[in-house]
Amino acid sequence: MTGKTSALIMGVGPEQGLGAALCKRFAKENMQVFVCGRTTEKVEHIAELINSTGDHAQAITADLTKETDISTMIDVVNGSGLPLEVAIYNAGNNRPEPFLDITPEIFESMWRILCMGGFLASQAVLNLMLQQGDATPKRSLLFTGASGSLRGKANFAAFAAGKGALRMLAQSLAREFGPQGIHIAHVIIDGVINGDKVVKGYPDFVAGLGEDGLLDIHAIAENFWTLHSQERSAWTQEIDLRPFKENF
Amino acid sequence: MTGKTSALIMGVGPEQGLGAALCKRFAKENMQVFVCGRTTEKVEHIAELINSTGDHAQAITADLTKETDISTMIDVVNGSGLPLEVAIYNAGNNRPEPFLDITPEIFESMWRILCMGGFLASQAVLNLMLQQGDATPKRSLLFTGASGSLRGKANFAAFAAGKGALRMLAQSLAREFGPQGIHIAHVIIDGVINGDKVVKGYPDFVAGLGEDGLLDIHAIAENFWTLHSQERSAWTQEIDLRPFKENF
Amino acid sequence: MTGKTSALIMGVGPEQGLGAALCKRFAKENMQVFVCGRTTEKVEHIAELINSTGDHAQAITADLTKETDISTMIDVVNGSGLPLEVAIYNAGNNRPEPFLDITPEIFESMWRILCMGGFLASQAVLNLMLQQGDATPKRSLLFTGASGSLRGKANFAAFAAGKGALRMLAQSLAREFGPQGIHIAHVIIDGVINGDKVVKGYPDFVAGLGEDGLLDIHAIAENFWTLHSQERSAWTQEIDLRPFKENF
Amino acid sequence: MTGKTSALIMGVGPEQGLGAALCKRFAKENMQVFVCGRTTEKVEHIAELINSTGDHAQAITADLTKETDISTMIDVVNGSGLPLEVAIYNAGNNRPEPFLDITPEIFESMWRILCMGGFLASQAVLNLMLQQGDATPKRSLLFTGASGSLRGKANFAAFAAGKGALRMLAQSLAREFGPQGIHIAHVIIDGVINGDKVVKGYPDFVAGLGEDGLLDIHAIAENFWTLHSQERSAWTQEIDLRPFKENF
Repeated sequence: MTGKTSALIMGVGPEQGLGAALCKRFAKENMQVFVCGRTTEKVEHIAELINSTGDHAQAITADLTKETDISTMIDVVNGSGLPLEVAIYNAGNNRPEPFLDITPEIFESMWRILCMGGFLASQAVLNLMLQQGDATPKRSLLFTGASGSLRGKANFAAFAAGKGALRMLAQSLAREFGPQGIHIAHVIIDGVINGDKVVKGYPDFVAGLGEDGLLDIHAIAENFWTLHSQERSAWTQEIDLRPFKENF
Repeated sequence: MTGKTSALIMGVGPEQGLGAALCKRFAKENMQVFVCGRTTEKVEHIAELINSTGDHAQAITADLTKETDISTMIDVVNGSGLPLEVAIYNAGNNRPEPFLDITPEIFESMWRILCMGGFLASQAVLNLMLQQGDATPKRSLLFTGASGSLRGKANFAAFAAGKGALRMLAQSLAREFGPQGIHIAHVIIDGVINGDKVVKGYPDFVAGLGEDGLLDIHAIAENFWTLHSQERSAWTQEIDLRPFKENF
Repeated sequence: MTGKTSALIMGVGPEQGLGAALCKRFAKENMQVFVCGRTTEKVEHIAELINSTGDHAQAITADLTKETDISTMIDVVNGSGLPLEVAIYNAGNNRPEPFLDITPEIFESMWRILCMGGFLASQAVLNLMLQQGDATPKRSLLFTGASGSLRGKANFAAFAAGKGALRMLAQSLAREFGPQGIHIAHVIIDGVINGDKVVKGYPDFVAGLGEDGLLDIHAIAENFWTLHSQERSAWTQEIDLRPFKENF
Repeated sequence: MTGKTSALIMGVGPEQGLGAALCKRFAKENMQVFVCGRTTEKVEHIAELINSTGDHAQAITADLTKETDISTMIDVVNGSGLPLEVAIYNAGNNRPEPFLDITPEIFESMWRILCMGGFLASQAVLNLMLQQGDATPKRSLLFTGASGSLRGKANFAAFAAGKGALRMLAQSLAREFGPQGIHIAHVIIDGVINGDKVVKGYPDFVAGLGEDGLLDIHAIAENFWTLHSQERSAWTQEIDLRPFKENF
């Protein structure tokens, strides 16, 4: 048996990552979770973990920058027969680099994953949600942002341009689809996440921050859930999240 | 028997108002709620309503722009023996007026209730919370903002100046007291609330907006609760709230 | 002989300060400059300096937080028979302090000089300008802001609340009086000014910054002039100014 | 004889357009102006107009989204032997459209001209300026923004995503190259420009706005000049420009 509605989490990677935490969080709400990411091995692993706890997940391998992959992904979601209740665009990448060292290929590929994929996914998701109508009690399309969405720092031109573009996309969608009953929100993550890369790669840095000095992936995921849970008479378009001791 | 900790809601007025909704929401969490406002009759009425449902509330009459009233209020809160877990500064007023018609008295009184009261209350609350230490699992100081906190519109100079000041105060406190474990957040309410004044005073306007066209006070209050509930590894400093169909 | 129109610079102090630089800059444009500040000795000294170069200035001693002083100031300006072309509210103060150490008196006095004086002066200036009609080719009311106008930093609660309030006031006035032909702009000074206090008081700090590491008062004043000079088909409401090497 | 330094204006189209006005404005300052745009006929016409007044201009046909064209453009600029003093990225496009009607091709092409071209041009310009060192008294790289740079409106997803990306790019460059002596600024044009398309295409709309209801291209160009003229101790990173009667 599966859940009554579905959740589509796009941009899922390692087990100790935000994408995986989002999958687990929404699976707890009796939704069928579609675990979507570029690496088959990773998304299948997350789906298995969720299914092993009695919740319901299905892996979808997709490169979100490709229209055909987006199309296949939506076919799977639609084919489940479960109305799509929430979709999250969490795909991203980062690579600080002096501006003059950024190749056009890197600048473009950063935009493709940060923004163009968000565009393609949004169109596919919104079309599906509008077609399914009011089949779910709530419908949300949520985006993962970063401090770079708001501020272009030195050496972060490619990242900030991509994230700034995604933020404007989300804001535009909020104004266009909010009145149609689809909640569009953007989550600005301002600080370092306690993902694998940091925790294992920079143990001294992490220790120096002390307890709760990093953003916990489950705490972040909880906020995506509360955004989705908001009643439509009081919707949030954008929130910021940072550790209590973060200097900002 | 009372709750295990307490909540202090400042700026409570009519039963169908945000202050009252905040009191009810936090009372549901087994907190002793201090219902604080200028008009004895009103705060006592709200406290009675809450107590009649089996939750716990106590009215405090206080003009939040007066140091002595703030001091008395804090004595009552402290005298309860219950650690203060959350305080909300919700006091406010609004009065659109052509700039050249605003008297200095009005400009100043607007600032007194919107900002100076927030300053006095924040000092008293923060001193108390720091003195009580880690007696509660979480500690929060939350502020009610408005679209005027971010934008100064024509004919709203006094309101925007007061709300803009309060926002900067809250942001400064967040940076200073966040690292000390006290969550400071600012809630921007961008739209019209379904309070008594509007619902009874402008029925045609309300009808024209349709279902959920106004911000529901209980939906807003829920968001204050979720802010307070955030884990400290992922705190929000500012959220916006508006009806799904609001033009923004 | 005097200039053809007048400029009112409010908040003039030491010779090596922004207020004085603004007076000198507008005096160069054949305007009669009213040099307004709290300390008679200082404003008279600046006026004398300007007159000694063949330009035209008159000192006005006024505490800008007092209605009667504002009223007297405007009488002098109006009594000159010269239409008021530009007014600048440059009064301010700053005093970083841990939040719990700020007395209510200090919090209030900071607001009085940063915001309430700006309100009183704006009303008086706008009333006068509207009464004088199109007697001058351009009419502007400009405000000096700071990084604290936009961000509340730790230990800057009083300053940020005052400056944030002034910014919202200016924005509201821009929306209300722009369409009436009066240009309202707000100048965010983001960095340290090369005024007496810093240059003499912290020579090592200044030397460490290197050439042009501080905001030059004359360079700032030039920007107020160019704002005033803008054609009304392309007005700026807000600019930021910082040294080229400033970290922001 | 030509000017002593050069100005590169990218994104020049019709005679009654902002690009052309920028060319004329900088040509007046004794700079050799490189008039760069996609349509040979148009850029040659603007260059001829400028040369016919005794100022100095040279047309360069280039599609700014193409690396090879950017490279050729820079070769021409560098080949002139005149140090490049100022470069402006003014290329753009706009096309309001319901989100679900935007094809991926349109979304991408909007980004290519609004942002990717800005990236390519910035790298080429900054490399050249750094290589030429302090050969000019000032060096600036300026960008044309829009209200869409700050706000994503309904039906403007593609435009806002592109402009928002360009804004973050400019901000990042400001933080990276400002300390190296290159002034990076972003001009937010908030309103309708009195270009050919509007003036001829919508005469009733223009008449309804009244005198100076549109942004005048020469008034805008003047602001680019004053930005370039700023002393480095007080640089602006971003200004907004709008007609005095614009509702904002």
